[in-house]
Amino acid sequence: MRQILIIGAGRSSSSLIKYLLDKSEHENLHITIADVSLESAKKRTNNHSKATAIALDVFDSDSRIKAIEKADIVISMLPAHLHIEVAKNCVTLGKHMVTASYISKEMKAVHEEATAKGLVFMNEIGLDPGIDHMSAMKIIDEIRESGAEMLLFESFCGGLVAPESDTNLWNYKFTWNPRNVVLAGQGGASMFIQEGTYKYIPYHKLFRRTEFLTINGSGKFEAYANRDSLKYRSIYGLENIPTMYRGTIRKVGFSRAWNVFVQLGMTDDTYTIENSENMSYRDFTNLFLAYSPSDSVELKFRSYLKIDQDDIMWDKFVELDIFNPNKKIGLKNATPAQILQKILMDSWTLQADDKDMIVMHHKFGYKNQHGKHQIESSMVIKGDDQTYTAMAKTVGLPVAMATLRILNGEITTPGVQLPISKEVYEPILKELEEYGITFIEKEVPYLGYNPESVKG
Amino acid sequence: MRQILIIGAGRSSSSLIKYLLDKSEHENLHITIADVSLESAKKRTNNHSKATAIALDVFDSDSRIKAIEKADIVISMLPAHLHIEVAKNCVTLGKHMVTASYISKEMKAVHEEATAKGLVFMNEIGLDPGIDHMSAMKIIDEIRESGAEMLLFESFCGGLVAPESDTNLWNYKFTWNPRNVVLAGQGGASMFIQEGTYKYIPYHKLFRRTEFLTINGSGKFEAYANRDSLKYRSIYGLENIPTMYRGTIRKVGFSRAWNVFVQLGMTDDTYTIENSENMSYRDFTNLFLAYSPSDSVELKFRSYLKIDQDDIMWDKFVELDIFNPNKKIGLKNATPAQILQKILMDSWTLQADDKDMIVMHHKFGYKNQHGKHQIESSMVIKGDDQTYTAMAKTVGLPVAMATLRILNGEITTPGVQLPISKEVYEPILKELEEYGITFIEKEVPYLGYNPESVKG
Repeated sequence: MRQILIIGAGRSSSSLIKYLLDKSEHENLHITIADVSLESAKKRTNNHSKATAIALDVFDSDSRIKAIEKADIVISMLPAHLHIEVAKNCVTLGKHMVTASYISKEMKAVHEEATAKGLVFMNEIGLDPGIDHMSAMKIIDEIRESGAEMLLFESFCGGLVAPESDTNLWNYKFTWNPRNVVLAGQGGASMFIQEGTYKYIPYHKLFRRTEFLTINGSGKFEAYANRDSLKYRSIYGLENIPTMYRGTIRKVGFSRAWNVFVQLGMTDDTYTIENSENMSYRDFTNLFLAYSPSDSVELKFRSYLKIDQDDIMWDKFVELDIFNPNKKIGLKNATPAQILQKILMDSWTLQADDKDMIVMHHKFGYKNQHGKHQIESSMVIKGDDQTYTAMAKTVGLPVAMATLRILNGEITTPGVQLPISKEVYEPILKELEEYGITFIEKEVPYLGYNPESVKG
Repeated sequence: MRQILIIGAGRSSSSLIKYLLDKSEHENLHITIADVSLESAKKRTNNHSKATAIALDVFDSDSRIKAIEKADIVISMLPAHLHIEVAKNCVTLGKHMVTASYISKEMKAVHEEATAKGLVFMNEIGLDPGIDHMSAMKIIDEIRESGAEMLLFESFCGGLVAPESDTNLWNYKFTWNPRNVVLAGQGGASMFIQEGTYKYIPYHKLFRRTEFLTINGSGKFEAYANRDSLKYRSIYGLENIPTMYRGTIRKVGFSRAWNVFVQLGMTDDTYTIENSENMSYRDFTNLFLAYSPSDSVELKFRSYLKIDQDDIMWDKFVELDIFNPNKKIGLKNATPAQILQKILMDSWTLQADDKDMIVMHHKFGYKNQHGKHQIESSMVIKGDDQTYTAMAKTVGLPVAMATLRILNGEITTPGVQLPISKEVYEPILKELEEYGITFIEKEVPYLGYNPESVKG
């Protein structure tokens, strides 16, 4: 019996655990699900005979070590900054480890020791990061192996609400951590390169510099740039590629309206508002508008942000009820971002029968002896229900598949890894197809950014 | 002979040193001028018999202590973050100390010990902070002593170029540290309160939310809000005042144009640009505009920022030469803010016969048994030349006057202080008048923000 320890039984672990339990008989697995809440852990076992739930406070190093000692491999589904203590124990105790998070500086630091001990520490193997790396590297490797030269790589991903559950003017609901959505794009300028020209977008312009995407069968989307696209040049071995851009997908019109919150300063998480608890939604909105006792908050809002009253954008803010003088914020010493999150959660929380949807889209431009070419590759996945969401499937299934392959000795490269080698992405992308996670690839004319050069 | 040690012989110490040397005979003073550059220190002595120049590396604690030991009082004109090591030595060695900088957390921490030893550590006694505190507290105390209640305090200050030297479209030149001008307003939202309503302005809107000021004899100005006006409520003992606003003065039109740099992201100091050294001014500007090989940088700039080509604002940017493809930046791995500073210094550096000008303006609203009233108090000072600038006079003279009064036992309250008590501001404001640094006070109707209530 091989022992798998999963730390963290949150929303993103449902498909991961189901996959492993479904295989447990055949693969001779026993799954221990550890969570700070024993109840949450128990729920995820689904009363399966091969699953055990335990309560685990990850800050209690004795219990943590005790749990890790019994495992052959450890999956950490904790928030990213909590992986490192688990990783240190795994190195010491000689256990493989899998996470769906970006490799942190701290995680990178255990690479040497993990490598020396022959341990695989697979990270960034969820959706984004994860499926994005694997689906991109598959085509990039194909292009390079054909002897062609990469000219352009653009990659987009977004967690959205499925069309049948899309019931508000923003065409958006929270399908993941709402706090990350409110803070998206903060912390520095977004940077990328287009046809050899570096571009930097400050946060307060990010949502006005969107790109449009059309995805066959799913319609038109928009995307705003992710923080640092430049670093992917070295990660993907595309050091000299002229165009490298990564972005986040939203339905068309979202960013223009979201920009209003940015402009007002409502997404700021760096200071707290005095007396926030007893303020109304209307008071909160008024904090960011010029003082003028003779004008209404509504008029000041439209005038400041240059929104016509018959613009659909105006209706989006009315829909969120931000001018309501009776709804209380009810959060003590809260930051603007925390208050905005609370207001949005009133409107954007998924209902019991709502489904989510993940959209991923890549563009690959390249040049060979026949000229310039472009491949587009898209994935659109809907959730089954509120447990097996598209997010849980796309994050959890690659984690589960990698875990089993490490256990079975099929993924063997030791050290702190991400899934950019064939050894990892080929079998996992193939198996993901069995679960409906498929990419549709098509060749399109190479467009680039210069219409003059299209004939080239 | 009383020994005064002045650490730092930069631009702001000229008037300070002259004042003390002029009084040295009569007051029996000897002045030691210490600077990392012996040459700079020597220049400031003006070959005066009561002055000695020494070279001092403030990071060398032995030499620092040796210099402080010989003094009766120490003036630190170092950059603010360097005061603390001097302050610690002054406490240990039992010396008074004077600075023109904001009281830091570290400085505050020596309050107890300085108090116990009967040492006066006077800070914030330059221009802003300094003359602003003193001139404000004088009128606030008068209003309160008359039994009236303060309703409004607004305070504005700016370092500008004198009208006779105002030769560019921005009506601005660097009269002080250019880096501070480029970074002005960054680091968090600006916060203030108006008629009991809190207001928060994010950095990217700061220069579009200006207030206008008319100062008799000097014309119309604009002001943008300083970072934290709220904290002045407790500093000035005005905890429950309904209106508290502090701002920075510029000539009208400056902020609207400066906002363009903010919108572009050119004032960002948090990341460095790859290959900045060999970029042209035009390349730099293009970094912040959307990629489009078929459009000129000029057109993209005007289109993105919605500037008409016959708008004077457009000419302001042309004047700065930011579209020049031949001028090289010449700074390695520089931040956008560092590059912008360099570009601006080409155009905004004071010429040999240019003069600077300081403008300060306060508004005091109050209520007594006769109704609501308002007092306005303004100071406008021009520099004599490039040595005795308005900035050097207004920063240095209050420092010098406080130093002499501490030496003479006229300012005695021990501990870490700022000049808000009568003991300090009364004699110093009076003496500043002898040097032409005078405020013109006038009563105006109380306007507040609500035209309806003006009759009240």
